[in-house]
Amino acid sequence: MTAASYAAVDWGTSSFRLWIISESGAILAERRSGEGMTTAAKTDFSAVLETHLQAVFAPPHLPVIVCGMAGARQGWVEAGYLDTPAPLSAIVQAAVTVPDANRDIRILPGLAQRSKEAPDVIRGEETQLLGAISQLGNGSHLVCMPGTHSKWVRVTGGIVDGFSTFMTGELFDVIAKHSILSHAIAGAGSFANDDPAFLDAVAKAVKNPALATNLVFTVRSGQLLHGLSADDAKARLSGTLIGLEIAGALATAKPGSGVCLVASGALAALYQSALSALNLNPVTIDADEAVRHGLAAAANAIWPA
Amino acid sequence: MTAASYAAVDWGTSSFRLWIISESGAILAERRSGEGMTTAAKTDFSAVLETHLQAVFAPPHLPVIVCGMAGARQGWVEAGYLDTPAPLSAIVQAAVTVPDANRDIRILPGLAQRSKEAPDVIRGEETQLLGAISQLGNGSHLVCMPGTHSKWVRVTGGIVDGFSTFMTGELFDVIAKHSILSHAIAGAGSFANDDPAFLDAVAKAVKNPALATNLVFTVRSGQLLHGLSADDAKARLSGTLIGLEIAGALATAKPGSGVCLVASGALAALYQSALSALNLNPVTIDADEAVRHGLAAAANAIWPA
Repeated sequence: MTAASYAAVDWGTSSFRLWIISESGAILAERRSGEGMTTAAKTDFSAVLETHLQAVFAPPHLPVIVCGMAGARQGWVEAGYLDTPAPLSAIVQAAVTVPDANRDIRILPGLAQRSKEAPDVIRGEETQLLGAISQLGNGSHLVCMPGTHSKWVRVTGGIVDGFSTFMTGELFDVIAKHSILSHAIAGAGSFANDDPAFLDAVAKAVKNPALATNLVFTVRSGQLLHGLSADDAKARLSGTLIGLEIAGALATAKPGSGVCLVASGALAALYQSALSALNLNPVTIDADEAVRHGLAAAANAIWPA
Repeated sequence: MTAASYAAVDWGTSSFRLWIISESGAILAERRSGEGMTTAAKTDFSAVLETHLQAVFAPPHLPVIVCGMAGARQGWVEAGYLDTPAPLSAIVQAAVTVPDANRDIRILPGLAQRSKEAPDVIRGEETQLLGAISQLGNGSHLVCMPGTHSKWVRVTGGIVDGFSTFMTGELFDVIAKHSILSHAIAGAGSFANDDPAFLDAVAKAVKNPALATNLVFTVRSGQLLHGLSADDAKARLSGTLIGLEIAGALATAKPGSGVCLVASGALAALYQSALSALNLNPVTIDADEAVRHGLAAAANAIWPA
């Protein structure tokens, strides 16, 4: 039997993921649950973690490396932020140890961009970046990490120069649920990545980002005047917000940067489609793998074999 | 005693306003209530109207001219849309008579822009425009009518060439209430029209509209990193959305158009401040007066003395 070396935890706002990693770096077990920071803050972070560790028969003294919102002020133990520009390797040195725990538990910090003009924070994605950096190599990269709050990170030779957060996923959600567009979108299923309504909206928003909130309204007026279907309405709202995000991110990029997409599943396919339609042809790195690689890099540095 | 000539009604989605107008054009009485289309559609449009008319002792056969959402499909009697380009004077000819009523009640139509590229609709603002047109005069105008759904209308010599709706007011509302920014804005009061946080956000969004959803996120990150106050957070969100709207509207304007603001109260002051800071120096027309003038123009054409 292969011995476990450490547990790796990606603890987000609304999700918890744990992997037991062997000495050779193989995944021995995996757990996923909805016990993110919001839930765990109401119960007990330690209890949530131990329950999942016991469920996979983890040894009592197995060390645990954690990234994400468990290190936020409102999380388990505050792990602060590294200020940009920051070498990704410095994340490991800034890990915080959970006090009075029965095992060695370290939480990785986030990144902060403290400029008055563009204050911004990242927590969790820095570990994905650490895991993706070996695949990126040197040179300047514009790394897209889509989600509730999409992050576009400017990385040069392993150093994070800066980053910009776009509220794309959350805005899609609140507009689709709480605005007048909810009527147009009601009952919509999922749409294809190459849905013309999606790609057309991406192209329009990239071409004229200033018209974004007008393009969003055409979801409603298109339904009134042209019988726009619920599926196409949803695709148009999504495409407009993603196009606006891409236009903004490109405006912040260093000239000559290559675009890299760090994402998984449906979101990866959607952004891949949008970016490719704009001839940006990103290098795509799986986000789940990236976070595990980042946690592994941290674990191997903190607990060398 | 001056005799009443007609009743003028501006029936919006969530508001009802009625004025009794004399033969000389003076306001004899006024009523305001929250019985907009949404409420009246659940009870009875006719009953709501008659209750307000009786409250001001309107004569039994006093005719009534109505604009706004009472003419929507989900309203009282559908008054359809005039297609752009449309002369504002044509609104009067397209008024619809409420059938089987005890008095002569006419509802004015909206305007529709049926292009596939930029479908859009207006209902209510066309009557404000009709009332504002004499003050605008000939030439090309870009008319800003701010609100839940801000309308920017391109008018040349009394003809509506086209228009664009921006969801500014509604987006402000759903983002402030339902997104993560609700924490940053909680407890905020009102902010001054010349609040630097507001004007700075307007300028930033106009300069780089593509960064809109990133600028919106700095409401949150500014609070985390720089202790941005709730009042400034609210001002920044408002300024970003209004700046984005202005940038988009300017992108649709005919070169050489003068900017005109049709608005009342706090919203008028806020847009006046934003537009002036951008050196757009709008002619401002009171929206309440404009809608009464528009209803008067329709009433005088339909029921000449």
